[in-house]
Amino acid sequence: MTRPVVISIDAMGGDHGPSVAVPGVAIAVQRLAGRDVRYLLHGDAALIEAELARHPAARAVSEVRHTDRAVAADEKPAQALRRGKGTSLWNAIEAIRDKEADAAVSAGNTGALMAMSKLILRMSVGLDRPAIVASWPTARGVSAVLDVGANITSDATQLVEFAIMGAAFHAAVHSKDRSRRSTVGLLNVGSEDVKGHEEVREAGRLLRETSLDLDYYGFVEGDDIAKGTVDVVVTDGFTGNIALKTAEGMAKHFFVPIIRETLTSTLLAKLGAVIASGALKQMKGRLDPSSVNGGPLLGLNGVVVKSHGGTDAKGFANALKVAADLAASDYAEQIARNMDRFGAALPGVQAAAAEGAE
Amino acid sequence: MTRPVVISIDAMGGDHGPSVAVPGVAIAVQRLAGRDVRYLLHGDAALIEAELARHPAARAVSEVRHTDRAVAADEKPAQALRRGKGTSLWNAIEAIRDKEADAAVSAGNTGALMAMSKLILRMSVGLDRPAIVASWPTARGVSAVLDVGANITSDATQLVEFAIMGAAFHAAVHSKDRSRRSTVGLLNVGSEDVKGHEEVREAGRLLRETSLDLDYYGFVEGDDIAKGTVDVVVTDGFTGNIALKTAEGMAKHFFVPIIRETLTSTLLAKLGAVIASGALKQMKGRLDPSSVNGGPLLGLNGVVVKSHGGTDAKGFANALKVAADLAASDYAEQIARNMDRFGAALPGVQAAAAEGAE
Repeated sequence: MTRPVVISIDAMGGDHGPSVAVPGVAIAVQRLAGRDVRYLLHGDAALIEAELARHPAARAVSEVRHTDRAVAADEKPAQALRRGKGTSLWNAIEAIRDKEADAAVSAGNTGALMAMSKLILRMSVGLDRPAIVASWPTARGVSAVLDVGANITSDATQLVEFAIMGAAFHAAVHSKDRSRRSTVGLLNVGSEDVKGHEEVREAGRLLRETSLDLDYYGFVEGDDIAKGTVDVVVTDGFTGNIALKTAEGMAKHFFVPIIRETLTSTLLAKLGAVIASGALKQMKGRLDPSSVNGGPLLGLNGVVVKSHGGTDAKGFANALKVAADLAASDYAEQIARNMDRFGAALPGVQAAAAEGAE
Repeated sequence: MTRPVVISIDAMGGDHGPSVAVPGVAIAVQRLAGRDVRYLLHGDAALIEAELARHPAARAVSEVRHTDRAVAADEKPAQALRRGKGTSLWNAIEAIRDKEADAAVSAGNTGALMAMSKLILRMSVGLDRPAIVASWPTARGVSAVLDVGANITSDATQLVEFAIMGAAFHAAVHSKDRSRRSTVGLLNVGSEDVKGHEEVREAGRLLRETSLDLDYYGFVEGDDIAKGTVDVVVTDGFTGNIALKTAEGMAKHFFVPIIRETLTSTLLAKLGAVIASGALKQMKGRLDPSSVNGGPLLGLNGVVVKSHGGTDAKGFANALKVAADLAASDYAEQIARNMDRFGAALPGVQAAAAEGAE
């Protein structure tokens, strides 16, 4: 008999708290039908129970852990750490350390989530800093892009660690063929070896010369992300955050409004839109950001998933599914295996580099 | 009587050479009707004349300068410099230095264009390195984003120079109200002063504390580009190149294919698309990259505009219009005026910073 997967939820996080988290659980129950997943909901018991009363399917697989303290959305990470013990966010993460849960999900304060996760769970052996990974819809499916905001700068070794973490994440959550190794590209401004920042070129050399359980593709450029050229796009958190928000902004403020305007601009266009409405609805679904909501913090001893603060129940359910998939996968073992290989190879590779530089 | 504006063209550059450049001139003649603009076409005279024979309107305002040498698309900048003299690209730029032309346009090798322009024209007084500016379609119109690839790293002073160059460019080419000062934002991963790279924060301080002829807005994030929050978005060439190509990739490989698929997925959708075809055609026009083609190299003693290598005649005509607009404007004077103010203010601002750091 397999043990159930338990997901610990900060029910007070995000713009909507339990009124999105609980309906999110209800949707996840449907979507994960056939899998034994349970939920630990941390926060104001009265509010959570009121929501659960309306969602009996969620009620049946949930347990509520009361606390009347929560981390504010604008709290600085250092402050959140100092006074964070006993908050819904803290308790949600602590449940992983105490072996009560396999994964934690929060739509709350990203900085606080990151700081508390590092403090309570610690980094996996050999890894330096956590990375936030985005699931990016592409022409071919979904690619993983990381880091998208946890680290403003990253040296070559950290970029290789992102490659290892991203490959394991993509295989666990997005791959249709689990036996295929993830392909990994380094985001750069050109495909030639001489281009880009020193740390990106050095990371390319390390990935080429170290035998890891992933397929290193080489440098990719910005337009390769949407093309789906590789499964995993690796970059520093500054560049990744700006690329992600630029693309989200183009969708929200440029493409979708133009499509809307176009189809309501004339009576004929309106008629055409009505006739094509089924197809247009389907298109809206593919452009819906909630369909890819759920950005895990990779590299910790435990699965921690950040949901967008403003997401709806469907988006929150998606973050829960990402957490369940990661918790049920061997992604932590794959990271550990690759980190072993990388650690063993590193001295030789670095010595060769030093010799080459002489 | 006003002097004509003369644009010098590297007719051999780009994927298509004279077969795009000459029809591009013909379209520009129509679009710039009422303005006295002439063209100097550098390259293989036989090929160029053959094209001109088919475009009498272009023929009437063009002069051909023969050379049988051209820079290859894949030539390294250093190599292009060594053997570049006498090529169509070199001659096109040299015409500015020799006062035969007011601006040069090429769809050829970007690195060679940059290197030759710096060598032949030199930088404007006080400016350190050229920047490439992109004209980015937004919800509100067109914003200028720079640098998008000329400089991999940029210190705080260079970012301020980009702000000055971008503000002058936007006012000259995109502003509808020439008396309004351009608004400028620094691209960052958050709006608070404590976020982002040291050089971005320092540039923010310099822009806040120096009285320049532009409106400094503060930090902007990736999604502010498409929103059109500011007229000018300033960033280093690594981040800018990746943001631009990421957005272009989303348009080309994700949004446009989804729209196409949606509207041809079922018979009803097809019927709807036919009925709405006028509106859809208009939408395609707004998403058409050739409508914003033409990325000037700013900061040189002279106007140099890079066209996409693969652009069509319409796109090349747009690059010619950008060149004509810049050449006819006071943008060089505006840059010089702001550089004077910045140069005068800099010692005081830096001393204050050093004191603050103590």
